[in-house]
Amino acid sequence: MSVPPPPISITIHPITEKTKLEYIGKDNRGMSSLKTTRRLDLEVRSPVPADIDIANSVEPLPITDIAESLNLRPNDYDLYGKYKAKVLLSVLDELQRCEDGHYVVVGGITPTPLGEGKSTATVGLCQALGAFLDKKVVTCLRQPSQGPTFGIKGGAAGGGYSQVIPMDEFNLHLTGDIHAITAANNLLAAAIDSRMFHEASQSDKALFNRLCPPNKEGKRTFADVMFRRLQKLGISKSSPDELTSDEIKRFVRLDIDPDSITWRRVMDVNDRFLRKITVGEGTEEKGMIRDTGFDISVASEIMAVLALMTSLADMRERLGRMVIGNSRNGDPITADDLGVGGALTVLMKDAINPTLMQTLEGTPVLVHAGPFANIAHGNSSIVADKVALKLAGKGGFVVTEAGFGADIGIEKFINIKCRYSGLVPHCAVIVATIRALKMHGGGPDVVAGKPLPHAYLTENLALVEAGCVNLARHITNTKAYGVNVIVAINKFATDTDAEVNAVRTAALAAGAFEAVVCTNHAHGGKGAVDLGFAVQRACESQSQRLNFLYPLDIGIKEKIEAIAKSYGASAVEYSEQAEKKIEMYTKQGFSGLPICMAKTQYSFSHIPSQKGCPNGFVLPIRDVRASIGAGFIYPLVGTMSTMPGLPTRPCFYEIDVDVATGKVRGLS
Amino acid sequence: MSVPPPPISITIHPITEKTKLEYIGKDNRGMSSLKTTRRLDLEVRSPVPADIDIANSVEPLPITDIAESLNLRPNDYDLYGKYKAKVLLSVLDELQRCEDGHYVVVGGITPTPLGEGKSTATVGLCQALGAFLDKKVVTCLRQPSQGPTFGIKGGAAGGGYSQVIPMDEFNLHLTGDIHAITAANNLLAAAIDSRMFHEASQSDKALFNRLCPPNKEGKRTFADVMFRRLQKLGISKSSPDELTSDEIKRFVRLDIDPDSITWRRVMDVNDRFLRKITVGEGTEEKGMIRDTGFDISVASEIMAVLALMTSLADMRERLGRMVIGNSRNGDPITADDLGVGGALTVLMKDAINPTLMQTLEGTPVLVHAGPFANIAHGNSSIVADKVALKLAGKGGFVVTEAGFGADIGIEKFINIKCRYSGLVPHCAVIVATIRALKMHGGGPDVVAGKPLPHAYLTENLALVEAGCVNLARHITNTKAYGVNVIVAINKFATDTDAEVNAVRTAALAAGAFEAVVCTNHAHGGKGAVDLGFAVQRACESQSQRLNFLYPLDIGIKEKIEAIAKSYGASAVEYSEQAEKKIEMYTKQGFSGLPICMAKTQYSFSHIPSQKGCPNGFVLPIRDVRASIGAGFIYPLVGTMSTMPGLPTRPCFYEIDVDVATGKVRGLS
Repeated sequence: MSVPPPPISITIHPITEKTKLEYIGKDNRGMSSLKTTRRLDLEVRSPVPADIDIANSVEPLPITDIAESLNLRPNDYDLYGKYKAKVLLSVLDELQRCEDGHYVVVGGITPTPLGEGKSTATVGLCQALGAFLDKKVVTCLRQPSQGPTFGIKGGAAGGGYSQVIPMDEFNLHLTGDIHAITAANNLLAAAIDSRMFHEASQSDKALFNRLCPPNKEGKRTFADVMFRRLQKLGISKSSPDELTSDEIKRFVRLDIDPDSITWRRVMDVNDRFLRKITVGEGTEEKGMIRDTGFDISVASEIMAVLALMTSLADMRERLGRMVIGNSRNGDPITADDLGVGGALTVLMKDAINPTLMQTLEGTPVLVHAGPFANIAHGNSSIVADKVALKLAGKGGFVVTEAGFGADIGIEKFINIKCRYSGLVPHCAVIVATIRALKMHGGGPDVVAGKPLPHAYLTENLALVEAGCVNLARHITNTKAYGVNVIVAINKFATDTDAEVNAVRTAALAAGAFEAVVCTNHAHGGKGAVDLGFAVQRACESQSQRLNFLYPLDIGIKEKIEAIAKSYGASAVEYSEQAEKKIEMYTKQGFSGLPICMAKTQYSFSHIPSQKGCPNGFVLPIRDVRASIGAGFIYPLVGTMSTMPGLPTRPCFYEIDVDVATGKVRGLS
Repeated sequence: MSVPPPPISITIHPITEKTKLEYIGKDNRGMSSLKTTRRLDLEVRSPVPADIDIANSVEPLPITDIAESLNLRPNDYDLYGKYKAKVLLSVLDELQRCEDGHYVVVGGITPTPLGEGKSTATVGLCQALGAFLDKKVVTCLRQPSQGPTFGIKGGAAGGGYSQVIPMDEFNLHLTGDIHAITAANNLLAAAIDSRMFHEASQSDKALFNRLCPPNKEGKRTFADVMFRRLQKLGISKSSPDELTSDEIKRFVRLDIDPDSITWRRVMDVNDRFLRKITVGEGTEEKGMIRDTGFDISVASEIMAVLALMTSLADMRERLGRMVIGNSRNGDPITADDLGVGGALTVLMKDAINPTLMQTLEGTPVLVHAGPFANIAHGNSSIVADKVALKLAGKGGFVVTEAGFGADIGIEKFINIKCRYSGLVPHCAVIVATIRALKMHGGGPDVVAGKPLPHAYLTENLALVEAGCVNLARHITNTKAYGVNVIVAINKFATDTDAEVNAVRTAALAAGAFEAVVCTNHAHGGKGAVDLGFAVQRACESQSQRLNFLYPLDIGIKEKIEAIAKSYGASAVEYSEQAEKKIEMYTKQGFSGLPICMAKTQYSFSHIPSQKGCPNGFVLPIRDVRASIGAGFIYPLVGTMSTMPGLPTRPCFYEIDVDVATGKVRGLS
């Protein structure tokens, strides 16, 4: 979701002598051993053309070729057109004895409006490893939300000469996973309101008659899913006819407290007028109106479930135990209580398979899941990473991106995603730009549409050095997990050697394994060869042990405080509402879950304008919520928008199809 | 969307001597010339198993084989997994010089709760033509709505031994077309509300500045889509800088009258609580609340556009000219006025291609579009039929289904769909059951869950003969278009020869070309061989001339009255609202469009309980609406529900995935 750095660099410099020699040496050996990767031998143009123009200038390889380069057989995947395929999770079983590749996570410094180029660096690193360093490599990316594609932001496929293609397919329907999430989320929402409606107008007996109707012989049976509710109620009877009238009442009445419902409807469209709505105003709904609202689809808990599940069976369980609210008695009500967990799984059964695509240089990419990085954990799926690690194999590389700055993305990557997956990263890359560091060092504000202030275009060592405190804390925090940190300096033409050296010095002082420059936005994989070498060295020297920031078996507050401390906070302050919710979740037995902080990405603290490395602040927890199916508690630090809007002139004004060629125009 | 007849027949009878001889003769000649079709040699079981069990008992052929049997080359289609492919519309250009196959439309008598088996007859007829009569055949079906799959009704893939497989993929996401419609429909809805919001808070100058922002040199440009609005306003200037302040005002202010907005949001879920809602209740929306609601996605005008467009360029134009409401001056406001017509087309660019699937006997099926049969025209897409006719080729057959009874489905097929496509059917099949005819003849009501009344299970010639008035009027009306009519009697084991003969006599007396019995629900294509022969004879004796029910260049009321007369009405009565809307649409220049009556499917009249063949009633027109992009005016005869609900125990209670095999359970 990061903004690519604006193209400024004009000439192509070999980055270091070493790289240059390696690169020439490789040229003399002829073609890469990975038959599908290709150099961007085509002269890269400067200034760098628009993303969609670069993407459209390269004819993608048939995705069957990309699959073949990973030794996938036709039965291992389903094609979705010529340039996308879903890799079936059955390959995990088939390859279970194979060794994994190296596991690399890419995070960033604290984001600024100037952009850091995290996705672009992720893609470029893989282009370098695959097309220039002869490594087997798989990039794991999140699927972007379709809604914002028509709003303000452009696509999320990387940028410049480091992109996933076809870029329009990446940014639009892809293989329908988000549509499946929308459908499943809203089926559950419909099930909630209609169940409350039916309970309101029917006696226990009538409900029972309809839920367990007698067959022709007058015999009643439970649907399979009903045994989950019975078990939860402690009723171990196998026939409805055996239930006492008290048991019938407990079984048929979910007695949902309307005020406790946390499940909202979703839509993959920027529709601000749905943020807060009243439903049930039709006369047929008999006055059962209710205040609720829509979020954008990627904010659905089902997206987080998709990202964290480890198999079809695991997904079935997680979807069934999603909590939508409480009964009036305070008991959590789940999707399986509503009888809909199985149907949700049916809707999600194809979405479970990651989508294979390719970079501009023909290296493979797995796109899968795109949970929010505040109310959820902001990482692509566990299963995509697992499949990728098997496909890359021993000596190969998997590069996966973590959303927002490392304080959020990498923290959640380690403490939530790796905790559930059992995987251990071999190296973390933190992407920084000189400009963004200058802003963290106190540089002037940037206003959209106005020229960039002078400080960002000419050498200013003082600002750079001051801003490196932000980078340093991200390095320290990440290193504390026991992971080698590489700093990738996403270099612009206006950045000076002295500025770059200042960052390198600060990074190494903070404990970085290496700090290297990359120019892959302008040059493709060739511009990230140094980064590729550094990542390779870091992976090879890494021990396989992960230190979590907190254990799971402490209280919710202690976990929140451990994370707050990593932000630089001196204390945590809980609202009354937050205290109440912590007490409730603890009572309901959910305190053993990891914590997913919903904090602004623009500062280590809760105040977006606090750049650099704030210290000693008190972190306020406004509310605490939970995604029980996905498997985390999420404290709200401030207000998170979960439904974007459209500006006066949305991007869609430029977007159209060339009806003669069928090509998409105007995507950015 | 029809309910398959309940399985009762036990033994397999050859239907007529003639068929038997043909069939044996064919057996002696060995395998069919279409290499992918296969006989249901596997003994058909009786009683007929559940649809999903039959569907799961047959391993589908790879869809590449089905494509090959139609002489499609790999570049002509995009695979979506192993059993679905989208056939690209480019084949229409490639095959434009080829002759078309025979074009057969299947309609029914007026539906009853007893079911007529229209989809099942459609599929069975194709299985007979393809697997038993050695014809090239393509079935064209509507894509069912996913929402109801989890509610009350089951799937819509036919039934028994006449089904489209894989049945779960047919009923669920398919290839994402309905999801694309949902996304496009709701992007337009968001664009409407957000435009009103921005217009309310900004001056003309501010709006202009944002809609046509100056570039670095201070120069403004129009986006391509803006020229459509300029043209509509009669402004032929090419640069924003040339506009006068009055022109700027007219250009930037759509000035939408909130009370005139007819565009609603959609969702492919049975969510009754969304029928009537209030949006915009968030504080950020500054009090701009508005009453609106959701329809189920297939009710979107975009679905009707998909069904009626003839090319990508035509779809672009139709999407752009969809009218969402009026300005306060009474001018229609279109998607292109909002700048979003191109983006809608981008969202729909893959949905434009029909999806190839197969029947249980390996004959090809094209699934494409599924517009409502009341507020829209209830037919699958024009382009699917056109592609199918080219693929079937000379001597081949295309069988396409028209929703509801022939009074609605075939009337709209002829007067709307054929009018836009220019195609002429060679034969119409009208499906009837003895039971349903008995109900039309005055048979007792049927109550769900109660045993079927005696009259439907034993011979009752009087009821059958009385009920044939319904069939007769459908025959007369359809024959009036100049099309040969075949009556297909979907026979149950309890139907007697005397009853069947009564129907046959009545059908021929009403002008049917032939009336034949079919048992394909129980026996697959073999049970529809007679029907296949009859259809072949009808097609071969058909002249190529179509008589529309009304010309386009008469007034809206005259067209409505022509259709009402075909129902048996003696007059039409308009509400004040209907009068006002007819006047408005006429003033806006839309009176030349065909008419799409939104009438109950359960009677020729507007009163669902009036079975048989009512006469001399006055048809009330409550309101008149328009789908300008799709291209029809739709008068409302009564209230149409466009958002179903969920019962106390929805089907979803039975639906789950077998996590070991990945197979779907419980779909019906």
